[in-house]
Amino acid sequence: MERVYNFSAGPATLPVEVLEKAAEQMLNYENSGMSVMEMSHRSKVFDKIIKDAEADLRKLMNIPDNYKVLFLQGGGHLQFSMVPLNLMKNKVADYIVTGQWAKKAIKEAKKYLQANNVGSSEDKNFTYIPDLKNLKLDPNADYVYICENNTIYGTKFNELPDTLGKDLVSDMSSCILSEPVDVSKYALIFAGAQKNIGPAGTTIVIIREDLITDEVPDYCPTMLSYKIHADKESLYNTPPTYGIYICGLVFKYLLERGGIEAMYKTNLEKAKILYDYLDQSKLFKGTVEKKDRSLMNVTFVTDDEEINARFIKEATEAGLVNLKGHRSVGGMRASIYNAMPIEGVKALVSFMIEFERKVLNAS
Amino acid sequence: MERVYNFSAGPATLPVEVLEKAAEQMLNYENSGMSVMEMSHRSKVFDKIIKDAEADLRKLMNIPDNYKVLFLQGGGHLQFSMVPLNLMKNKVADYIVTGQWAKKAIKEAKKYLQANNVGSSEDKNFTYIPDLKNLKLDPNADYVYICENNTIYGTKFNELPDTLGKDLVSDMSSCILSEPVDVSKYALIFAGAQKNIGPAGTTIVIIREDLITDEVPDYCPTMLSYKIHADKESLYNTPPTYGIYICGLVFKYLLERGGIEAMYKTNLEKAKILYDYLDQSKLFKGTVEKKDRSLMNVTFVTDDEEINARFIKEATEAGLVNLKGHRSVGGMRASIYNAMPIEGVKALVSFMIEFERKVLNAS
Repeated sequence: MERVYNFSAGPATLPVEVLEKAAEQMLNYENSGMSVMEMSHRSKVFDKIIKDAEADLRKLMNIPDNYKVLFLQGGGHLQFSMVPLNLMKNKVADYIVTGQWAKKAIKEAKKYLQANNVGSSEDKNFTYIPDLKNLKLDPNADYVYICENNTIYGTKFNELPDTLGKDLVSDMSSCILSEPVDVSKYALIFAGAQKNIGPAGTTIVIIREDLITDEVPDYCPTMLSYKIHADKESLYNTPPTYGIYICGLVFKYLLERGGIEAMYKTNLEKAKILYDYLDQSKLFKGTVEKKDRSLMNVTFVTDDEEINARFIKEATEAGLVNLKGHRSVGGMRASIYNAMPIEGVKALVSFMIEFERKVLNAS
Repeated sequence: MERVYNFSAGPATLPVEVLEKAAEQMLNYENSGMSVMEMSHRSKVFDKIIKDAEADLRKLMNIPDNYKVLFLQGGGHLQFSMVPLNLMKNKVADYIVTGQWAKKAIKEAKKYLQANNVGSSEDKNFTYIPDLKNLKLDPNADYVYICENNTIYGTKFNELPDTLGKDLVSDMSSCILSEPVDVSKYALIFAGAQKNIGPAGTTIVIIREDLITDEVPDYCPTMLSYKIHADKESLYNTPPTYGIYICGLVFKYLLERGGIEAMYKTNLEKAKILYDYLDQSKLFKGTVEKKDRSLMNVTFVTDDEEINARFIKEATEAGLVNLKGHRSVGGMRASIYNAMPIEGVKALVSFMIEFERKVLNAS
């Protein structure tokens, strides 16, 4: 089988050029005589890999100098603990709950502080982003937490909440690098690499320096302290070296292609092709409020479970894979991250048009 | 430059055959149409990868059925927290302190319980393993902790301590799979993959089932609970999928070559070549007590810092790289894990013989 169009929500498709480069360098990275997997994390050659990765990410996201970039492990789940453990001062935080990931985050935070649910869209199975204008924030809140793009549901904060000056923490796992953001509006951004950056097992944290403190609770595991990792520039322990290398290749790939602005333009185009089709389809329909649609995860259904199942099966046979929606939503989900080429989206829509024609003709 | 002989202590050299396979499968794993990096961790194809990896590791180490195998993240450092957080009952544990890693482990454990130093070799810069016969164990100790092979110093527990029936926890990061072990003698074994298995970022935990409990302290981060990971068969969160795949390739490579028994035979042979040479050299000498020598990390020095530096430099130029000892020991260290071919050790000794001849002739 040739390579497929892989609409997986994560781990997700990567640029072919990056994979080709990784394959080519697998046995001997830039004349070092070894694979990146075999390199000491303290070696000069790896030092350049991680420093370049950081510099390229800073360039891509225009990260201000007063923010640290950390390459960690443990994914979003470990951040659910690290955020409250490191940011608590008054031991109060406000969470906007727009899906399962935010629910997990607030649940974990409640171990450590008073975590308030200040806005939720659970009443309609997270198909929208709650009103962000009149949030009842706790005056003592140490931070306001959002999951900016909701992978499972296909919603996105298309504007940021008014935090009344409070620090904003964002789980950007499934939208980082998909569109320009003003990093200075955030106190902390984190993202698991496996959706829009690189392989699973690398987690990126971008944190404003004044939030890096050694005033963590006594019971905080050393590995969960941002300060420990920041002080050692992500080399306190052996980092996921190969994952960082692949992230670095992706960053270079993006820079060579015009950076985030160029990606955003293509992402808008890709999403428009799919949403425009959905909006006129007599068979398929989008599942979320239009104003809150995600550019990265497009969720849709038909009225008939059997037709959903048949669609997923036939699409898979046609090389359009991993279109099954998350079990809590059902139906279909097409994740169209940066690395999904526009040809993949066009192929999907062509397939949907033909599938719709067949189904409607038969009925 | 051709591939070098890489004596790095970790991340460390991997079998060429594994890297070749990984390169070959990079863009399209077994006709799946995608890289392993791009696969959903919930997909059937990845499910087979992780299940095969576990089954092959069980076969290699002859792991009894009442032990769980977990593929985690965070390396030894996160285990330093997870072990006490999950195993504490009486809140007492005994640690044998044979190097920096055991020191870090006991320091971390002291956050959570009374961690006793019941045997140390720090008086002689960890150049030996303390007497294991008459350990003064705490009757209330929940477990006895060892770092079985001390990467930095080149020592190894060549017999296990008599724990008087208490549970034994072993950090096997730098000796796992190097020789046969009787897993049933241990309560818990952990190992970062990056020394003798695969890439950094994957941590293997082998834990006796009765130790898996949900009675962890309230403040224990969810991700640090063995039970959470055991219940979900290492898929509670997105695991380091690509790292697990590479570990799996290494396991298959070992099985195809006769398993641990065959590796052990070659490892004995490799270490003997190096130690026999050191024992008769007039220039170089080993740094640790003979009875406590490691098969994996061979530490040695000359009497002269300048000659050490010259040796490392000239060896590097000859394609024998990463021979510099850890800063806390100085001198040289040759890490000769499973993946270091015997030809690499022979090439090193040939180089040492010639270097010794030159130096002694010049003086």
